[in-house]
Amino acid sequence: MTALRGTLSPLVRRSTLWSLFSSHIRPNNKTVRWLSQQQHRGAQGTRTSVLLTGTVDRFGGVTVKLDSSSLPLDISESAFSELLRDSLIQWKAEGKVAVWLHVPISLSRCAGAASSHGFTFHHARLDRAVLALWLGEGESRLRGFATHQIGVAGAVVDESNGKVLVVQDKNKTKNAWKFPGGMSDPGENIGATAVREVYEETGVHSQFRSLLSIRQQHNHPGAFGMSDMYFICRLSPLTYDINFCTRECLRCEWLDLAELAKTNETTPITTRIARLLLHGLEHGFDTIDLAMEEIPAYQLYQLYHRRLPMALKP
Amino acid sequence: MTALRGTLSPLVRRSTLWSLFSSHIRPNNKTVRWLSQQQHRGAQGTRTSVLLTGTVDRFGGVTVKLDSSSLPLDISESAFSELLRDSLIQWKAEGKVAVWLHVPISLSRCAGAASSHGFTFHHARLDRAVLALWLGEGESRLRGFATHQIGVAGAVVDESNGKVLVVQDKNKTKNAWKFPGGMSDPGENIGATAVREVYEETGVHSQFRSLLSIRQQHNHPGAFGMSDMYFICRLSPLTYDINFCTRECLRCEWLDLAELAKTNETTPITTRIARLLLHGLEHGFDTIDLAMEEIPAYQLYQLYHRRLPMALKP
Repeated sequence: MTALRGTLSPLVRRSTLWSLFSSHIRPNNKTVRWLSQQQHRGAQGTRTSVLLTGTVDRFGGVTVKLDSSSLPLDISESAFSELLRDSLIQWKAEGKVAVWLHVPISLSRCAGAASSHGFTFHHARLDRAVLALWLGEGESRLRGFATHQIGVAGAVVDESNGKVLVVQDKNKTKNAWKFPGGMSDPGENIGATAVREVYEETGVHSQFRSLLSIRQQHNHPGAFGMSDMYFICRLSPLTYDINFCTRECLRCEWLDLAELAKTNETTPITTRIARLLLHGLEHGFDTIDLAMEEIPAYQLYQLYHRRLPMALKP
Repeated sequence: MTALRGTLSPLVRRSTLWSLFSSHIRPNNKTVRWLSQQQHRGAQGTRTSVLLTGTVDRFGGVTVKLDSSSLPLDISESAFSELLRDSLIQWKAEGKVAVWLHVPISLSRCAGAASSHGFTFHHARLDRAVLALWLGEGESRLRGFATHQIGVAGAVVDESNGKVLVVQDKNKTKNAWKFPGGMSDPGENIGATAVREVYEETGVHSQFRSLLSIRQQHNHPGAFGMSDMYFICRLSPLTYDINFCTRECLRCEWLDLAELAKTNETTPITTRIARLLLHGLEHGFDTIDLAMEEIPAYQLYQLYHRRLPMALKP
């Protein structure tokens, strides 16, 4: 990680000095004072540059984090634009391949200024946006941001009587039985999502047993143009009393799996999973399960696949 | 969908008029002229409001898209802040539960102004940010944005000789054999990602056969704080000549599955999948596969699970 502070070329120095007195800078006293101070301190040798400073990653990308320590909080769009322009001249001269610009939401006007230099949003969350500009040859090779939302449903099967826990959503045009479920949070394992969502919707405590199925779907109406993966897990009940969430659900019942597999009052995917579960009840769940294992690699991860004879595991 | 134009309350009218002459508005001539025009046209009866206009969704959320048709492109932060404040008073009085604000990157200063009213980034991509503010009771119930990146690897197995196509990444500290793969694009099915990535890295054409395994991982270094799902697919070769990408790969070979299952020069997950594939070669791939089916529901989707006897399918 190399800070870029103090790597001023003559070319950049010229353009920076020019910008101090340019008519492109509006008469915003605070900004001019700040830039002047930089110049003054530069003359004293404590600081030699009014360029943006950043860290360099191993791919040759520069990351600049804007905050009150690097900028006056009331810097104008045009003053920031000049500063960024001069910094870009320097980074290009140094052969940098990309610039990442972290912008706090309160300094969003700097994002507007950056857009005039070709920056676009890479992503944004809560109080911060990250913009990127590819400086390398050809098409951008920058890694994209998260592209998928992950939903998880839990099929809680009571093996003692062949019943499964199902709900009907509130405010739907068609009343269809389905398995309780919802969106997985970042950092949450899918089994944990299934157990949490089942409890939140139905009041039933349960335990993760296996992954049963995955649905891939694009153009999901609630996915903001991104894609959707839906995981259906098999769970075992730890409690049986239903206390369902009246805000989300219209009905909640323990329903016969055989009945769920036959009824029209459900969705195609629920019918399919009900048939899969019936098969598991009759022939053993190891015929339908994807087993989960936690594997310590350079980081701990969870791996799902069909169970192998023990001798084949490492 | 209800436009909010023309729903001005006396309270809002007062605060709007006040803002026109307030010292909070900087002497930006164009902005003042624009606001005055609004007032003037209002007096002529053609337009009665300087509030932001938006559409209302079925949950009671308002969506406002800022663009040149709704705002002067040089509107100042403080002028937009006043406009938004007055609009928020109106939306709250109408019982709206949330406001979604779409901001083009060039108007990012409006995002800064919105942050002073409690708005935060919901997401941003390329030339647009979407901010949100929850106005309803309790914790926000707004749906989040995409949380996961999806990677896909393809294990291309030549059944005629028990070999599998593997690569070694360039620029790694340890040379480890792995299956070629990469990130799935939004809207791309995982089988298509596997086939595309295998071709891009190795020059080998292949065909999707099944899903073998899923790895879930958090705190992935390249995931920008989001979570990571990695899918390993089984593919069949359509061509055999290797022409690998020298920018991404150091080596590329057809390697004996038995050798890959034993070597230390690989990753734990590759070892595991090699053993799974060996088992499939010996006992039939239906013992390890998750079959994929396209199911037409209200939208077409892809469903993966273990194969059922035909009689159990709908």
